[in-house]
Parts: sequence; C-alpha cells; structure tokens
Amino acid sequence: MRTQVAIIGGGPSGLLLSQLLHRRGIDTVVIERKSKDYVLGRIRAGVLETGLVDQMQRAGAGARMLQEGLVHKGTVISYGERQINIDFEAHTGKHVLVYGQTEVTRDLYAAREVVNGKLIFNADHVQICDVDTETPFVSYVSKGTTHRLECDFVAGCDGFHGVSRQTIPRSARREYEKVYPFGWLGILAETPPVHDEIIYASSERGFALCSMRNRHLSRYYIQCDLSDSVQDWSDDAFWEALKRRIPEQHAERLITGPSVEKSIARLRSFVSEPMRWGRLFLCGDAAHIVPPTGAKGLNTAASDVHYLSEGLIRYYADKDTSGIDGYSARALARVWKAERFSWWMTSLLHRFPDQSAFDLRMQRAEIDYLSEDKNAQAILASNYVGLPY
Amino acid sequence: MRTQVAIIGGGPSGLLLSQLLHRRGIDTVVIERKSKDYVLGRIRAGVLETGLVDQMQRAGAGARMLQEGLVHKGTVISYGERQINIDFEAHTGKHVLVYGQTEVTRDLYAAREVVNGKLIFNADHVQICDVDTETPFVSYVSKGTTHRLECDFVAGCDGFHGVSRQTIPRSARREYEKVYPFGWLGILAETPPVHDEIIYASSERGFALCSMRNRHLSRYYIQCDLSDSVQDWSDDAFWEALKRRIPEQHAERLITGPSVEKSIARLRSFVSEPMRWGRLFLCGDAAHIVPPTGAKGLNTAASDVHYLSEGLIRYYADKDTSGIDGYSARALARVWKAERFSWWMTSLLHRFPDQSAFDLRMQRAEIDYLSEDKNAQAILASNYVGLPY
Repeated sequence: MRTQVAIIGGGPSGLLLSQLLHRRGIDTVVIERKSKDYVLGRIRAGVLETGLVDQMQRAGAGARMLQEGLVHKGTVISYGERQINIDFEAHTGKHVLVYGQTEVTRDLYAAREVVNGKLIFNADHVQICDVDTETPFVSYVSKGTTHRLECDFVAGCDGFHGVSRQTIPRSARREYEKVYPFGWLGILAETPPVHDEIIYASSERGFALCSMRNRHLSRYYIQCDLSDSVQDWSDDAFWEALKRRIPEQHAERLITGPSVEKSIARLRSFVSEPMRWGRLFLCGDAAHIVPPTGAKGLNTAASDVHYLSEGLIRYYADKDTSGIDGYSARALARVWKAERFSWWMTSLLHRFPDQSAFDLRMQRAEIDYLSEDKNAQAILASNYVGLPY
Repeated sequence: MRTQVAIIGGGPSGLLLSQLLHRRGIDTVVIERKSKDYVLGRIRAGVLETGLVDQMQRAGAGARMLQEGLVHKGTVISYGERQINIDFEAHTGKHVLVYGQTEVTRDLYAAREVVNGKLIFNADHVQICDVDTETPFVSYVSKGTTHRLECDFVAGCDGFHGVSRQTIPRSARREYEKVYPFGWLGILAETPPVHDEIIYASSERGFALCSMRNRHLSRYYIQCDLSDSVQDWSDDAFWEALKRRIPEQHAERLITGPSVEKSIARLRSFVSEPMRWGRLFLCGDAAHIVPPTGAKGLNTAASDVHYLSEGLIRYYADKDTSGIDGYSARALARVWKAERFSWWMTSLLHRFPDQSAFDLRMQRAEIDYLSEDKNAQAILASNYVGLPY
C-alpha cells in the first residue's frame, strides 16, 4: 500500500491532520493501535481555542461543535473566598468553546468516514522505518498479517507513549521534563455545572477545578497526593473536599450526584526537541505534554497540526520545502509558550509539599497582583484563549 | 529628654521621616548607633522611584538630587545577546532617577542640620522600652552616660540587624524568609558607565548588572557563589567575567579601571509581620528585605515612611488615629508587592544551582514572552518605576 502521508495515531491530532490534508487533495492513511471505541472512551480536556475551532471548520467537521459547544467569554480564578473574573472578550476580543475532546474526535471520525478516509484500527507492532531516506515506510500487523505502508512523510500523532518519538535516536533528541508532586482526581457527573464559567480554585487545602462538558454533564477535579488511589476517594469524600476548596457562594449551590467516571491523572511538563527527524514529524503529545491547568494540551497539538498541514500543503502544491523545513522551530516556539503558561498556572494555583511560608506568600502576592492589575489579567486572558499561530 | 517621635536609626528612612515630620511641626530625635561618616560610607542602591523623589522635595532635601540625578526613562534586560528595551515612559508616563543612596543620606543630613534637627550619633546599648504603654521611652549610652528619651512614639528605622524588630516579642511576630543560593560581587569604579541605561543581564554564566552612580562613577555586579570571597576576585577577573555575561555590543565598549570598592552581598527576601507593635512602628529594612534585583529596598523603605509620616501627621493634627492604626496593613500591602517583584526579577535573571534543564527553558520562555508582549513589559515597567502609594 502507498500513501502520501502516513499518520500514526487516530486521536484528534492525527484525524484533524488527515482531514485538513484530504481537503487539499493530499492522500493519507491513519494507523491506530487501538479500536475506535477505545479512542472515543478516553476522557480528556474540553476547552477549545479559536484556532482549533477554525481548523475544525476548515476540516469540514465543525457543524455540531458550533451548535453544541458552550461559548465561554471568561473564567474565574478563586483564592479562598476571593474571586477574580478574567474577561476574555474585554482583553482579547476572543472567547473559548467548551466542547469535549471526545466529541471533537467523534466529529472528526464522522468527517473522515463521509469521504472514505483510510483508517486502520487495531494495528499492532507499528514500526516507522527509513525516515532518514527518501523512501520511508510504516510496517504494522493487522489481523495477524504484516503490512507495509509506503509514503512520502510520516506524521507521529501517537501520544506520549507512542512509537513515533522513540523512532528518533535518543542521541538526536533533547528532552525537558518536570514531574509535579501531586495529581488530579477527577470525576464526571451527570449534574448541571455549578457555574456557567470554569472555576480555577486555589485554597489552603489545595487546588480544585469546576468544569463541564455540557449543561448536564459536569467535570470536577481536586488536587490529590501522588500516593492516593481512586479507591481512597468515595464520591461523598470527593464532594466534601471539593466544597471546602471553592468559594462558599459556589459550594452552596453545588449539585452533587454519583460519579460516572473517576480517575487520577499525574501532572507533567515535557518537551522533546526537535519535532522533525528526516521525513518524520511529531505532533501533539508525542513531542510535548503540559499539566492540564490552563487546558493547553489539545490546543497545542492543534497548533502543531496547523504548522505541519501548512508545510505539507505548500510542499505538495509547489515543491516548496520551507514549511516543512521550518516546522520544528515554528511549532516549538509556540509549544514553549504553552509550556510556560501551563507551568505558571499550575505553580500559581496548587499547594506544593515543599512550599515555605515565604513561597506561599509569593503565590498570594501573585494572586493579589492578578486581581488588581489589568495587564496581568490581559496576559492570562490572551494565553488562555490562545496565542496567535 | 523628651520628644514626640523617637527615631531609631540615622539612615535614609529615619532621616526622611524626621525631616517630613519636622516640616509639619512634629518634634523628633534621631538616635544612630554609628558615626555620621560610617553611615555615609555605606554603598547602597541608587535608583529612586517617583514617590521617593517627591518625598525628598517635600522634605526640603531635593535640590541637589534634581540637579545631579540622572533621569532614566527605561532599562535594558538582556539574555545572552538578546536585548529587551523596557520603556518606562511609554508604559507608565513615569521615569526613575539614578542618584546614590549615599547622596540621598548626605542631602537629608544637610537638611536636618540646617534646621538644627536633633541627631545623636554613636549611641550604644539602645533599648526601646514600654512601647506597649502610653509612656514609651528609649534608653541609650552616649560617651559613657546613660540617657533616657521619653516620647509618644518610636519609629524603628534601624535596619535588619537593629534592635527595633527584636523589641517585638518573637511570639507576636511572624517571619517569612527566602535565602538565595548565590551572592552579588559588586565593584565601584571611576569609569564612565558602559551604557546610559541600567542593564540587567542574564547569561549562561550567571547574572550581571551594569549600573552607575553618575556619569563618571560606575557600579557593576556579577552573580557569584556563596563560598566566594572578595580576595578570590582580582579586578581583572571581575572585568573578564562581566564582559562574558553582557551583550557583545556593550562588552566591546566597556571601559575598565581599578575598583575603588569591592564587596559581596548576600541575597535575601524577608518580611516580619506586623509592622506595628503598640507605639513602635517599623520602617524599611527593620521589617523587610528584598534582593537588590529591581532596586526596591530604599524605595520600599520610603513608602513605609510615607504611610507612617501621614499617620503621625494626622494624629498630631486631629488626634485621628486611623493612619497609625492602619499603618501596618497599608505598608505591608505594598511591601508584599515589592517582595513579589524583587523575587520575580531575581528568579528570572539568575542561574540557580539546582535548576533543571526544564527550569532553564521556563526562564527563557519568560524572557521570550517579555520580549514579545507589551502587557508583560508594562508590568515590569510599572513595578520598576514604583506602584502607587
């Protein structure tokens, strides 16, 4: 089998890239290790920057998103009882769209299927070969048979644990990493959200986040110890802990209910450089991870897809290699900004086990500054809605 | 002997307070442990915020400062060869005045002497007594004789190592502290400054600062190890290290010369709360220390003096105690902002021994953000020229 661009990974980045290239006449094959149902079962972020919203529309997959997505014109940062309203529209003229990553993926699958896009699920033993030559190929095993997919380029959209990054020799990569000393315990509940904006809550007992998927499905998180397991936290214990970390005004109105999903996520900052190796290009979590504070994970993957799709389109249209040659530098420049913002939001709002009394006061002083200074609010707003591509 | 306000410490804060009160008809006595020459021999900061410039004029001690001080409308932040110009006037409509702290002190002494202000030098065994009663007094030994100075209030302007803070029972104080894992090696040289603005230089080899006292007297600093001593650093070694840390464009123009002073300062963030205890009020370094990055030490002492002088003037004019009752909270609110800014500038520009590759990239990402974002530049500018009182 032969294609122009072999895409490793059938999550939102791979699908979006595939669809954007398809619409410019470029042939792709998406190779996914798991089943479609497995991919759609992953619970992930749900805050979309304008850039991603635009791409979904260009990809012909934006209709349901625009209909069902919730427009958020601001967010709330709280610190104890104190609340700071960050007005995105006032500072940037933009907003974000709350729409679950699962729904993004579902819409992209639907769009791919309408045009008979080639998607291979349950592909085992994926290997990316000869990307340092003119004739790369991908081999994989499907239903017991080994296949060979020849291509011009490979896009590695297969996440942090995928094979794409590992294909780049260790000596040719530089990795940067920070592991945070806490986790996020999250639940999904079929209850109306406590507030119509997302609340990022810092408190003496740790961080909490009040988010939502839609008007009937809430997503809440609390900072937990790394040693905690889901079994340690009954629904009741979760709700009690959450109430103590958010302003009373919201705690009083919180509607609780049985969790329909409960999980603990570890928080990590990670970047692997470069994002190109010969004819292999990394996108999204394959090259970088952010802690979820600030919702930059999916959005940063989308900016990679933007730069890569532009580069490939230019290459196939005019044999102009400037876009693909500049891909790694352009993508990384924006990645580091998202890393900075996510690290800053995480540092600002969590309790750290080794924090001194002085460190705590610096956090409070930063919150105080944010509450009083329009420039500080503007920086938060412009990073949150997404820096320009 | 009796006075209205006994002022402990004959540095710039004590003298400024004394002079501001004098001009509103309030009697003070300044008690200094050292000689006048000793006080004037201390080399300290030299960047004055507008607020301090205004106070010096109100104190009748501003004439020479306005004549000789250098107006700085901006500053340079460099990171390797990259330079960011922070334009104070564009962002804030304000500027700072470069004028040595020694000169500020000299002018305040002159102003005090013109009006026969009471200054007691070489006062040993200073004790602040009965500040929790209506009848406080200060005892001290001068030329072998013990004296008792009765007063209404005591202002503790005697610095970090002074007796004032220690007079507040340890159980009634809360202290916050961060000690930085490096020092500043500084020299004073009778050479023209390398640039007409101050340069804050971050580099792979550590931080450096190019500052000045006037057009013929330069002040340079480099980050050094805590274990270094002045004897480890010849003038030549200092100049070589400095040149490697600042952008080439400046290094090439640097005029070197023999140092006329060379010393190592440790960097510390420190706050003691509250700043009032009965009839004792702490001002400046007696209550708080900032690392010198950002030049907030003298300026924050001056804001304390502003709040305290206002409170005392109101008390003596109308028996209105609201100003002195609110002193600690008002002063501390601004102190914490200065602590935040100084800690941020210090964290941004120095190399830390335990810094990971990721931490270093976050520093660089912050510098990149600062270089591109007008709001970030505006925040730096408005903090540097001084937040409103």
